[in-house]
Amino acid sequence: MQNNEYLRFKELVEEHLLYFLPEVDHKSITLYESMIYSLNAGGKMLRSVLLLAACDFCGGDEKLALPYACAIEYIHTYSLIHDDLPSMDNDDLRRGIPTNHKMFGEATAILAGDGLLTSAFEAMNKDMLLYFDNVENLKRRVRAVYEISKGAGCRGMIAGQIADIEAENKQCTKEILDYIHINKTAALIKAAVRAGAHLGGADKKMLADLDEYAENIGLAFQIVDDILDVKGKEEELGKKTGQDQIKRKATYPCRYGLMESKEKVQELTENAKKAMEPYYDNAEFFILLADELASRIR
Amino acid sequence: MQNNEYLRFKELVEEHLLYFLPEVDHKSITLYESMIYSLNAGGKMLRSVLLLAACDFCGGDEKLALPYACAIEYIHTYSLIHDDLPSMDNDDLRRGIPTNHKMFGEATAILAGDGLLTSAFEAMNKDMLLYFDNVENLKRRVRAVYEISKGAGCRGMIAGQIADIEAENKQCTKEILDYIHINKTAALIKAAVRAGAHLGGADKKMLADLDEYAENIGLAFQIVDDILDVKGKEEELGKKTGQDQIKRKATYPCRYGLMESKEKVQELTENAKKAMEPYYDNAEFFILLADELASRIR
Repeated sequence: MQNNEYLRFKELVEEHLLYFLPEVDHKSITLYESMIYSLNAGGKMLRSVLLLAACDFCGGDEKLALPYACAIEYIHTYSLIHDDLPSMDNDDLRRGIPTNHKMFGEATAILAGDGLLTSAFEAMNKDMLLYFDNVENLKRRVRAVYEISKGAGCRGMIAGQIADIEAENKQCTKEILDYIHINKTAALIKAAVRAGAHLGGADKKMLADLDEYAENIGLAFQIVDDILDVKGKEEELGKKTGQDQIKRKATYPCRYGLMESKEKVQELTENAKKAMEPYYDNAEFFILLADELASRIR
Repeated sequence: MQNNEYLRFKELVEEHLLYFLPEVDHKSITLYESMIYSLNAGGKMLRSVLLLAACDFCGGDEKLALPYACAIEYIHTYSLIHDDLPSMDNDDLRRGIPTNHKMFGEATAILAGDGLLTSAFEAMNKDMLLYFDNVENLKRRVRAVYEISKGAGCRGMIAGQIADIEAENKQCTKEILDYIHINKTAALIKAAVRAGAHLGGADKKMLADLDEYAENIGLAFQIVDDILDVKGKEEELGKKTGQDQIKRKATYPCRYGLMESKEKVQELTENAKKAMEPYYDNAEFFILLADELASRIR
């Protein structure tokens, strides 16, 4: 990515990524090692960057949003660890290195995921304790955590995961396909943006525009991912490609073909940009990002 | 249990147990079904009852603590579902019925656990939103959620789980054995009591006494469980007995024998009661409960 703001936010997250994890005893060091193994595997940090950017955009101090940005990476990473398990997607490679269960075994991988998910809420709640004398900011934090819990939960990411599993090997309707994509991926992206907006003190209009933006790039992002699974290079993606077809996953390219999927990405990208255009230069980060995400398949 | 207060609190939890789960879409109905399958399987509701009792004891309205009491049952239930998985304890039976993965398959069981854990935090955070005009009660809630996240997390229950797995088939020191018991079981029991105390508005002295009580009955409870695994009846316990010895788990009876383990339970029970004796009749519930838990092995 050439977006300098993106790099600045990403570096901020990377520097603090382990900082908000609870201190663990040496007797549970394996747990900690397996958690940071997956956290340190790299990645785009899209969700946490969006959270910081939304906070900054709405007038907040992005540094004070770091516990929430890191927490959303803990949640995203836990979801990948569990998703890769043998009984789920059974993947051996993620971000160019062996998946968590390949390194640490299944039991530890399950607990590492559970640990990351719980640590996310522990970190956010610990941060709230610092705002007992600053009630307005305390309330913003409560709102942010609620957004994240919803986006990660049974009406968001986990709903998408179960629908994804159930749709394997089946003829899948457009309705189910959209349901999977909106929940599996877009829900947590949207939660990140909405949480950042709350932390930054967004008004109703800003929150609605950012929401519209996030829903569109979230959906575009998943379709891009599906397209790259068909035509991307394994060494660039750090994971095995062609897996969706082998597992007969419900994806846009499988249902609509590559051409129509690319058109859909373009349409969603335009919708996202349109939501932020009223803010002109102030929204430059968001406009650039939407284009960059779409350009991955050009 | 003959403790009428216990029954009253337990009924209150049972009546509201599903109430705080997020509404799910019919497309993710399997997820919901698997979650409530395990939630409805019965159980003692020890953690949630303790939370309500601690809140009531400290002068709070236990009905307003219900989202937190139910959330702690979601967390306890998720931990059982994941603990029973083939790669973990590989149990087929729990509370007299097939374990979650036996009914719904491994992938769904993992997601049901993830869903329950996330729903716990979603439910508690949603409740916090109701207290924006009542800052003192909002702060109590933030403290309560922080206690629960710590007790369930990498310095609590999950630390105990990983140590438990690592100790299998090994000669285990007294230090490790205590570490497992304190974290695997006592940590969440303590978190329940502390959370309830915060919700009820406990002062420092009350919080410290309840903490001392909870740590002692939490540890006693796990040793009782281990003893029942050796000498209990399967039909009464609803799960296979003798499993600890087969899996060469680190338990009190294995390390110290039955006699010494029973003495330890008695000692811990006396310590717990001593912590609450200064409160005389007001603490009757807690005194009775400590004796009842210990009486299971008489």
